[in-house]
Order: sequence, then structure tokens, then C-alpha cells
Amino acid sequence: MNFAGANILSVDQFERADIEQIFAVADRMEPFAKRRMVTRVLEGAILGNMFFEPSTRTRVSFGCAFNLLGGEVRETTGFKSSAIAKGESLYDTARVLSGYSDVICMRHPQSGSVSEFAAASRVPVINGGDGANEHPSQALLDLYTILKEVGGRGGSIDGLRIAMIGDLKFGRTVHSLARLLRLFDNLHIVLVSPEELAMPEVYVEALREAGHKVEVSTELMSSIAHVDIVYSTRIQEERFASQEEADLYRGRFRLNQEIYTKFCEPNTVIMHPLPRDSREGANELDNDLNQNPNLAIFRQADNGVLVRMALFALILGVVDQVEQSAREVNWYHRRS
Amino acid sequence: MNFAGANILSVDQFERADIEQIFAVADRMEPFAKRRMVTRVLEGAILGNMFFEPSTRTRVSFGCAFNLLGGEVRETTGFKSSAIAKGESLYDTARVLSGYSDVICMRHPQSGSVSEFAAASRVPVINGGDGANEHPSQALLDLYTILKEVGGRGGSIDGLRIAMIGDLKFGRTVHSLARLLRLFDNLHIVLVSPEELAMPEVYVEALREAGHKVEVSTELMSSIAHVDIVYSTRIQEERFASQEEADLYRGRFRLNQEIYTKFCEPNTVIMHPLPRDSREGANELDNDLNQNPNLAIFRQADNGVLVRMALFALILGVVDQVEQSAREVNWYHRRS
Amino acid sequence: MNFAGANILSVDQFERADIEQIFAVADRMEPFAKRRMVTRVLEGAILGNMFFEPSTRTRVSFGCAFNLLGGEVRETTGFKSSAIAKGESLYDTARVLSGYSDVICMRHPQSGSVSEFAAASRVPVINGGDGANEHPSQALLDLYTILKEVGGRGGSIDGLRIAMIGDLKFGRTVHSLARLLRLFDNLHIVLVSPEELAMPEVYVEALREAGHKVEVSTELMSSIAHVDIVYSTRIQEERFASQEEADLYRGRFRLNQEIYTKFCEPNTVIMHPLPRDSREGANELDNDLNQNPNLAIFRQADNGVLVRMALFALILGVVDQVEQSAREVNWYHRRS
Repeated sequence: MNFAGANILSVDQFERADIEQIFAVADRMEPFAKRRMVTRVLEGAILGNMFFEPSTRTRVSFGCAFNLLGGEVRETTGFKSSAIAKGESLYDTARVLSGYSDVICMRHPQSGSVSEFAAASRVPVINGGDGANEHPSQALLDLYTILKEVGGRGGSIDGLRIAMIGDLKFGRTVHSLARLLRLFDNLHIVLVSPEELAMPEVYVEALREAGHKVEVSTELMSSIAHVDIVYSTRIQEERFASQEEADLYRGRFRLNQEIYTKFCEPNTVIMHPLPRDSREGANELDNDLNQNPNLAIFRQADNGVLVRMALFALILGVVDQVEQSAREVNWYHRRS
Repeated sequence: MNFAGANILSVDQFERADIEQIFAVADRMEPFAKRRMVTRVLEGAILGNMFFEPSTRTRVSFGCAFNLLGGEVRETTGFKSSAIAKGESLYDTARVLSGYSDVICMRHPQSGSVSEFAAASRVPVINGGDGANEHPSQALLDLYTILKEVGGRGGSIDGLRIAMIGDLKFGRTVHSLARLLRLFDNLHIVLVSPEELAMPEVYVEALREAGHKVEVSTELMSSIAHVDIVYSTRIQEERFASQEEADLYRGRFRLNQEIYTKFCEPNTVIMHPLPRDSREGANELDNDLNQNPNLAIFRQADNGVLVRMALFALILGVVDQVEQSAREVNWYHRRS
Repeated sequence: MNFAGANILSVDQFERADIEQIFAVADRMEPFAKRRMVTRVLEGAILGNMFFEPSTRTRVSFGCAFNLLGGEVRETTGFKSSAIAKGESLYDTARVLSGYSDVICMRHPQSGSVSEFAAASRVPVINGGDGANEHPSQALLDLYTILKEVGGRGGSIDGLRIAMIGDLKFGRTVHSLARLLRLFDNLHIVLVSPEELAMPEVYVEALREAGHKVEVSTELMSSIAHVDIVYSTRIQEERFASQEEADLYRGRFRLNQEIYTKFCEPNTVIMHPLPRDSREGANELDNDLNQNPNLAIFRQADNGVLVRMALFALILGVVDQVEQSAREVNWYHRRS
């Protein structure tokens, strides 16, 4: 695809070459995101960071990515007081707001809303999450993380073995990731969830049609024994039909260091879209994994900045100017 | 008036020459607002964008205007958690906040509050709307839009025929616009509203004293037949004394393409302060006007950025430096 | 202490030499804060201004300080919609958010939370207030104000006579200030409050152990007769055990111009951490003091910007670069 001026609305708009281009640009963003270098390539440009639904980290990640390229950010958070609540159409909102900035990132609780908005916008729009529908930059950063984490092992996504664990029925991130994975070859995918929260058949079929091997399971431990990537997600108790059902699964999808040591191959990568619920009884990653070097969840969050910088640089057509204007960071920063 | 360091609190502070000066500067801001050129003339300056009442688009428009001149924006939105709610006087709030920025834009729900604030502020203050009282930048952008829309027809506001439609009793924008129009000559003004929502007599008298011809009507179609500008505003049903009264007028002030074609002269300009209510039964502009090239409502919103840039440049005394430091935009942008 | 890369969590981490270093840097920030000069020394750096509890002026003061050094600010305000509310640990929040910025200022309602956050953060953290516990930049700006206000009288804090008035039991600012004052010599401190709101014994003891003379009183007028500094704070009526008790003290700690003239020595400095309650019946500073040249409360707020600029410059190690890149302000600004 031609990125200059394009909207980023859905993972379905990408071909494999597009993904590879985004990731190649993301790699080049690392010196800036890691504060070794400064670039001002977007000095004077404005991002409209329009969050009609709150999401602190996604909002800050997009805003930070734009700042790291030298641009300014104007924001809105929340919904109730907005003109939309007074009966304004998304068409009008888009016509007006797109007069204020060079690119817009939009989150909105309603599925399909961002595409409708983008159709009326006069500047490129990135979907920052539209209800249960899409959150393409999250899927891209997940895939980018997989690629970087296995980099030392050949550096390809093709042929990887990936377990997705948790709420695979309602989880937007696993759906988008599954759709992206269709672009790659020879994957072995293990889908682990309570029966009530199984991956919808449409995604399973699509993965199989792409030539991947797909296994479905309700058991954590056997499922993570022979994979490269464990992608864990949150299970909300209220998703179950009854409390009895919820109790049945309580903690059964929780991965901790003991289980990891006992069942996983060495260097199995642990991922999670965050936030993880660290309260007692949560069905997620245990805090005792925090010292495990294969826990990639915070590198995953960091990668979000790289991927979002790449999207901005591609959409605004400044990739080749980024390094030209680079200089070294002149302030103290911790090495990490 | 001398703009350097001045407060912008009310349309009444302007003489005709002041308006003309603001509009001449606004014209010079267009290359920057349209992203053909970048200026950094206010690099290092800070706008305190203090919205003690929410208004996404006005807040973002002011913030964007300041960013386009190269300055930074610090913001607040909302009221409940602020010091004002703990019994702090506007005097104290102004003394403190004016230590943080070079200029302040303030919106506040209470009529007269911004003037009180400005009296204690140590930096210039722009009124971003104080309750039912004033919103001078809105009136300026409305007038600027009128001037630009009729530019090809002689380029003067003098002699124009303008219909104002909708809630003329409570509508802050039509009041401010009416006050500004006193500065011009030989206007023909048609005031169209339900009787209960008629323009207050004080404004009607003032327009007549200024030498304008003023007609009052409760009928939409005959009123828009011989005007250059149709300025439509929202009618909120709760403004009527009874539901029966509201039902009587439902949709009677709604302009659509069919009515436009049948009754309006060619090139009649359609304006609206936005947001417009696009829900069924609203008394406003129909969506089928969206393709009408004389629908100026989004150009009107865009003009807000130009006018606000002009106010900032005048108040901070940098008009003549803006172009000196200009350079071409180096990123992709759609032409629109 | 070595400031480069350090967290600023508590006033207890400072020795006297540290305080003096911060204040010396703060002095050098004045041309930038007063808008005579512009510096861009932190151009490209990002402050994460994370306010998980609202505080307009502290948030804007920190953000403004960072902008004045040329950096960008990404912010969050509020708590309910944040990941923390979904069970995310402070550890996770810190790991994620510290990937987005070069330094973080954090306010949080829970005592001790900011230290916990800082332990997991990958970038330096400044405590912007953690519940009833600490607010170190407030204590620093209070002390800096005392030093500057008495500058003409010898310029030392040693030997000063300071009255602290109001709610000394729950007031976080007087506790922090008391802790800082232990670093100085030969102070005479008068603690004035209703008995129910007296300074906790631990602070009184610490001041005495530091060699200071400490008096405790429930009478305003006699207490302010022989001091250099009157530091007034808010008394909230709901702090009293009963309404009768509250009524007993109503207005008895309110300082006005008449009392000042009658009881205070000439040039006694009046301070207050703000906001002050200007409503009838408040136990604070009367508005009739606003013209008193010794009312330092707004200079005190201004000093917050200087002190916060100093902290950022020290933590990020750019103190010596600030003036190198300085240039004169090119826009109009009022002299004040």
C-alpha cells in the first residue's frame, strides 16, 4: 500500500510487504524512542489525539510517539461533554476536527465509528480502537514484539508456535493478531480458553485456510509445553454464564514461574496486551514472573511507541528525513 | 486599539479599523493554518488554555492556533476539582495562573467571570466564552467568514443582506454577531425565529440605530429568499414553554437542499456556529446540504483557527515576525 | 546528593547543601520564567505529568516548568478510568509509563504510592504529592520564598522567626516545611492552631532537637507580633470534633490588614500554600491584604515554577547548558 496520506483503520488493509515496511521503519525509530537521539522532523505538525473513550496508555503512547518525532499534540479525553453527545454527526465532527491537525488518532466506543469518521476527515486517521472492532496499532505492536523477541532465533515469524490464552471470545487484541497472522506461513497456533470463551470459529477457520496448524484446548499446562510464544490475556469473571462456571476456571489460566519452569521450553516468550490484573484470583500472569527475562510484556508496551512512530512517519511521508535531522540527546538518561 | 498586551473580552471593544486589522492578519495566517508553511515565531511561549467549562472544539481550536505559531499549550478542562470550587476567588486564580503562561484563553460558565479574571491577570486574557455573555472570537470568525464568502462579490460587508435563524433569544453567537454588525453600513437584517425565541429588543434597536434595515419574521421560506447569508442556529426544544409550542415549530426552521433550491438566490451562503444537531426532528441544517458548495459551516470552523492565530499574533506583538521565520511544510498533507 | 537521574520523593533526602544547590539553580531560572529569555535546552525531552488525583495548579506548574526548558508534556488527570482501577499494580503502571517519557511527575491519592512507583520506574520520578505523605516541591518552594523574601535583610534562613498558623495537624505543607527547617540553625518557630489541630509532637520534637526554639499557641495576635514570616494555612471546619468547637475558632486565625498593622512588625512576610478560601467565615488571609507589599502568596506560587525548573534541570543534568542556548524573548510581555 501507499502509506503517504493513508488511513490506518484495520489490520485487514495490510499485505505482508506492508507489515515488513512498518517494522523496518519501527526499527529505525529505536534510537529516538530510547532517547539516544533526538529528531525534529515533524516540528510544526499537530496530532489530534481524539479519545472519545478513556485509555491512558494508548493515548499517551500515541502522543509520546508524535512528540518524539518533534510534533505537537492536541487532545481530548472523554465523551459526555462533547458535541457528539449533543447530536452532532461523526461526519460533522470529522469535518471540523480535521481542520485542526495534520493527522488524527481516534478512539471511540462504537464499532465502525472510526471508519465513518475517517471517510469525512480531511487528514489521515489512525484507529486507536473502535469498540469491539479493531485496534490495529496494538496488533502491529504485538506482531512486532514477536518478531523482535525471536530475532535471535532466526528472526522470522514464519514457522513459529504461538499459544493464545484467556478470553479468546471477546478479546479484541487476539482477534486482530489472528487476522494479521494469516499473512505468514506454517504457524502452529494453540488456542487456550474456557469453552465459553473460545475463539470464534471465523478466526479459527481463517487461520486454517492460511495453512496454519490450529489446536484448541481448555488446558493451560499441556498447551504451553511446545510453543515459542505464550500470549496471555485477561479473563473477566463477569464473562461467564454463572459464578459456578467462573469458579471452575479460577486461576486455571494463570501462568507463574513454577509452571513456566516445569512446562515451558527455555526462552519461551511471555506476552500480554496489558493491563494485567495483579489482584488475587485473577486469571493472568503472576508477579513472580517479573524477573523472568522472557517476560516481554514491558518491551511489548515499549514497542508500541516504535510502531506508532513508524505509522506517523509513513503516513506523513517523512521516513527518509528522520535521520537527516537527528542529533544526540543532550540530557541525562538512564540506560535500560 | 493597541493590541499588544491587550485583553480580548468583548466585541464591544472593537472599532471597525480593529476588525479590519484582525482580518488582515488572519489572511496572512492562512499558509500556516493550511499547512503549506511552518512558523516558529512563538517558540518558547506558553498558552494557558483554561477551560473551566468543557468545549472540545473551541479549546482545541485555540490550542491548535497557538501551536501553529510555534508555542506550547498547557490546559485545564472542567471545574469540579479546581481550586475555584474550594472557595478560591477569581482574583487569586488569576494571580496564580497568570504566572504560568504568556497569554490565557479562559472559558467559564459564569457571565462576567472572564473580565473579573482578566483584571487580576498579569498576562493578556482572551475570553473563550463566559456563560451567556460573550464569546468574541466566535463573533469574529463568523464575521470573517461572511467577508471571505462574499469576497468574490465585492468583498465588503457593507450592504449585505443577512438572515439570522433559530433561537435568537438565548443564542450567544447571534447576539455577539449583531453587536459587531453595528460597525458596518447599510445592512439588511432578517431575524427569523419562533415568537418565544425572538431577538431581544435591545439588539434590534441597536441594529436600527446603526442605520440598518431590520425585519422580524417567524417564517423561514420567505425570509431566506433575498439574502446573501443565512446564519442558522440551534433551537433546543426545552426552550419552549410547553411541548405543544415546541411541536408547533418542529422542523419549521430546518433548511434542506430542496428549500434552498426553491427559495434562495444562487450562491446564498449558509452558516452555522456548530455543532449542528443531525438527529431527526432537529430544527437545523439538513445533511443533504453537505454537497452544496455554499454550505460554509466547515470553512467557518476553519476560519476560527485563522482568527485565533491573528489574535495571538496581535496580542503578543509578533505579526511582522511570522513570515520572517517561515519555511515550507516538509511532511505529506492532503490538499483541501 | 547526585541529582542526575535521581528521584525526588521526600524532603528527607536533602542535606543543606542540596537545598542550596537547588536554590542556586532556581535563581538562574528566573530570566526564563519571567519571560525575558527563552531556552530550548530540553527540546525533544518529554515529561510524563501523571496526576492520578486532580490538582490544576500543581499540574500546570510542573508542565509549564518543563515547557519553559523547551520540553514537551504528556499528561493524565484522574483515576477512575485508568488501568490502576482495573487491578493493575503500581509496578506495572510504572514499567509501562516510564517507557513513554524522560522524567515523570506523579501525584496519587495514596500515601507511599509514588515511592513504590519510582522503584519500578525506568526514568526519574518527582513526587507531586502522595496523599497525606509528601509534596517535596511545595516545601522547597516555600523555603525558597522565605529565603527570597528576607533576601534584603541578610539573605539567610538561619536565625529567622517563623509563625505557622492554621491546621497544623493535617496540613501536609507545614509538616514538610518543618522537616526541611531542621537543616537550618537558630530558628524561632511559633506554632499557632486550635488545640485540636496542633502540630504533631513528632515534628515539634524534631524541631527542638535541631536546636530551634519552638513556641506553641492558640492565639493569633500575640503570636505574630515578633516574627519575620507568617505562614498561614487553611482550617477546614469539618476537621473539628463538633460544630460548637468549630464556631469557637471561627475567624480567630484570620489575618487582615488591620490586625497586621496593629500587631506585626513592619515587613513581616505573609505566606500561604494556596488556594486560600475567600468565602465568608474562612479562617485565612483576608482579601484586604491584597495590596500589602509583604503579601508574598503569589510570588510564592511563581517560585514554584523556578524550583520545578531547577529540579528538572538538575535531574536531567542540563543546568550548565541552559544559558548557553538562551536567547531573548521575541514577543510582547507585560513587566510584572
